[in-house]
Amino acid sequence: MNAITSASAIRTVHVPLGERAYDILIGPGLIVRAGAEIASRLKGRKAAVITDENVAPLYLKALVASLDEAGIASAAVVLPAGEKTKSFEHLITACDKVLEARVERNDYVIALGGGVIGDLSGFAAGIVRRGVRFVQVPTSLLSQVDSSVGGKTGINSRHGKNLIGVFHQPDLVLADTDVLNSLSAREFRAGYAEVAKYGLIDKPDFFAWLEANWKAVFAGGSARIEAIAASCQAKADVVVADERENGQRALLNLGHTFGHALEAATAYDSSRLVHGEGVSIGMVLAHEFSARMNLASPDDARRVERHLKEVGLPTRMSDIPGELPPAETLMDAIAQDKKVKSGKLTFILTRGVGQSFVADDVPASEVISFLQEKHA
Amino acid sequence: MNAITSASAIRTVHVPLGERAYDILIGPGLIVRAGAEIASRLKGRKAAVITDENVAPLYLKALVASLDEAGIASAAVVLPAGEKTKSFEHLITACDKVLEARVERNDYVIALGGGVIGDLSGFAAGIVRRGVRFVQVPTSLLSQVDSSVGGKTGINSRHGKNLIGVFHQPDLVLADTDVLNSLSAREFRAGYAEVAKYGLIDKPDFFAWLEANWKAVFAGGSARIEAIAASCQAKADVVVADERENGQRALLNLGHTFGHALEAATAYDSSRLVHGEGVSIGMVLAHEFSARMNLASPDDARRVERHLKEVGLPTRMSDIPGELPPAETLMDAIAQDKKVKSGKLTFILTRGVGQSFVADDVPASEVISFLQEKHA
Repeated sequence: MNAITSASAIRTVHVPLGERAYDILIGPGLIVRAGAEIASRLKGRKAAVITDENVAPLYLKALVASLDEAGIASAAVVLPAGEKTKSFEHLITACDKVLEARVERNDYVIALGGGVIGDLSGFAAGIVRRGVRFVQVPTSLLSQVDSSVGGKTGINSRHGKNLIGVFHQPDLVLADTDVLNSLSAREFRAGYAEVAKYGLIDKPDFFAWLEANWKAVFAGGSARIEAIAASCQAKADVVVADERENGQRALLNLGHTFGHALEAATAYDSSRLVHGEGVSIGMVLAHEFSARMNLASPDDARRVERHLKEVGLPTRMSDIPGELPPAETLMDAIAQDKKVKSGKLTFILTRGVGQSFVADDVPASEVISFLQEKHA
Repeated sequence: MNAITSASAIRTVHVPLGERAYDILIGPGLIVRAGAEIASRLKGRKAAVITDENVAPLYLKALVASLDEAGIASAAVVLPAGEKTKSFEHLITACDKVLEARVERNDYVIALGGGVIGDLSGFAAGIVRRGVRFVQVPTSLLSQVDSSVGGKTGINSRHGKNLIGVFHQPDLVLADTDVLNSLSAREFRAGYAEVAKYGLIDKPDFFAWLEANWKAVFAGGSARIEAIAASCQAKADVVVADERENGQRALLNLGHTFGHALEAATAYDSSRLVHGEGVSIGMVLAHEFSARMNLASPDDARRVERHLKEVGLPTRMSDIPGELPPAETLMDAIAQDKKVKSGKLTFILTRGVGQSFVADDVPASEVISFLQEKHA
C-alpha cells in the first residue's frame, strides 16, 4: 500500500541523449526501492556503492538491503566527506574497490551522496574497464538538481577544481526527496540557489513561480518535487542541446564565475561560504554587472536579489563573514578559472530575468572596476 | 626539395569516426615535419609532449624544434620506459604537466613513444579538462600498426592490465617510418606479429601478400609503408564498425587471450617474451585450437606457423626461454582476462586464414585439455 502510494508520487524526467538516454526518478521512498527500480530497468547484478562518512550511517544500510532483495550483490566503500575527497588518492581507492567487486561493463557503480561523491563515483565509473554503468542516488538538494544531470564527473587538481574528469552519463538517477528532510536549513537554501538559477537562465515563468511558491518548496511535499523536476528538466534541456559544452551549456555557469572566485577567496571554508551561497551572490553580481554594461535593467538585479534574500541566501560580498581579499585577487581567480578561453574573459550575462547569454569577450578592465565598486 | 620528396612518399589512412574522424599519416620524415603537419590541420598553439627515457634522447629535440618552428609552444615530460609506467603514479605526473603547460581544450597532448607512452598519454589527454586534443607520434612498429588506431587508452591495475582508462580518439597520428630503422630486429619482428594478425583476422589476400613480400617489409622502403598503411586501414575498418567494443571489435584480440596468459606466465619479463611474441604464439594456438574444435583445417595452422617462424617469431610455448607454469595456471590467467563475460569463455577462433570470428561460449574443459597437450 505504501509502495503504491509512493510510486504514484514519483515524477520522471527523461534525458534524451540517444544511446546515452536515461531517466531521473524524483520522489519519496526511492532509496528503499532502489534495488527494485534498478533491477526492473537494467541488467547487471553486481554493484559497488561509493558513499561518504556522513551519508553512510543514514542510508547505506537501507540501500544495500534493497539491492540484496533485488538480487544485486554489492560491496561498499565509505570515503571521507568533503571537497578534499575529489582527489586522485580517493579515486584510486574507489577504482580499486570497483574492480575488487568484479563489476563488469553492465554492472554498476552506485553513488550514494552529494556532489562530491557523485563527481568522484561517476569518474570511477567512467574509467574502470573504460566505462561501467553508473547509478546516482543524490542525497542533497544541490546534487539532485545539479550534479545528477549532465554527466560531468571529475576531481580537483592543485591547478584548480574539476580539472580532471570525463563526461560519463548515468544510466539511472534516483532522487529520493525523503532525504532532503535531514538537510540543515543552510544546506537546503544553498541547493535552492541552483533551483532559482534555472529560472534565471531561460525560464522566467519558473522564476516567477518560485517567487510565489518558495515557501511550499521549502516546506516539502508536491511543490518541492515539482521544483526539483522542473530544475532537472531545465538542466536536461541545456545538456541535450550541448552535451560536451561547446557552446550553450556554458549558460549553466550563470553566477559561477563570480561564485567560484568567492569560494577560492574564502579558501573553500564552508563555515564562511558554501558553493550554493557563492552562486547566489554570483547571480546577483552577474545581473548587476549586466546592468552596468547597459545590457539589462537594474530592476532585474534588484528583483533577483530580493528573492534570494527573502529565502535567506547571501546576496552581497559583504554578507560573507570575515575579510575578503582585494578586488585584484578576485580578478586573478576569475582569470584562472577554466572558462577563460585564449586570454579572453567569458561570462554568462543577462538581458533580464530568464534571458541569460554567453558573452565571449568581456573586457577585464570593466570586471575589475565593477569588483572594486562592489568590494568597497 | 627533400620536403617535397618526403611528402610525396606519405600515405594517409582516414579513420571515419564522425566528429571524431582523424587522419593517420605514414611515411619518412614526419617527426621533423610534425609542427607543420599539426599547425596546418589543427588550431591549438600549446602542447605537452609526453615521452620516455629511451625515446627522448633520440627524437624529442627534433620534435620540439619542429613545434617551435610552427609556433606551437611545448613543455615535455620524460617518464621511465616500460610497462610499469602505465600506473596511476605516472598518470598523475602526466596530468599535472599538461595542466602546468596550460593546455586548453583545443591544445594538444602529444605522445612520443611506443604503446606504453601512447596508452598513458591518451588517457591523460582524455581526462584533463574532460578531454583535450591528442596527437600520437608512435615510435615502434607495434604502436604504429596497433595502439595508434582505435582510441583505447589506459593504465594497469593490480587486478589486471588496461583495466582503467577511457576511449579517446587521437586528432592526428604521425607514423614516421624513419624511426623504425632504430628498432632492434626483435622489436621489429614483435610489431610484425600484429601486422600479420590483420591478414589472419579477415584479409586473406593481405596475409598472402605478406608471405610473398615480408623480406621487403623488413628491409624498409615502400613495401614497409604499404604494410603499415594496410594494417592501420584494417584496424580502422574494425574500429569504425564497433568503436566501443560491443561486438566485432573483439576480433582484434586474435591471439591475445593465449598471448596475455603467456605474458602473465612470464611475469611480463621482456627478456623472455614481449607482447608481439606472445601474440605470435597465441595466433598459432588459436588456429590449432580451432582445428582441434573441427572449425578449421590443421593446414591453416601449419601455414600460419610456417610464416611466423620464417620471419623469426616464436610460434610455440617451448620457444619461450625458461620454465612455464602448468597448464592450469595458464588457464587461471585466461579466466581472469577481462574478456571473460559472466563466467563464459570468449575466444577469437577461426575457420581458416582470414576467417576469424568471435566465439562466445568456448568450454573451459576443452581449453584446459588443449593447453595440457601443447604444454607437454
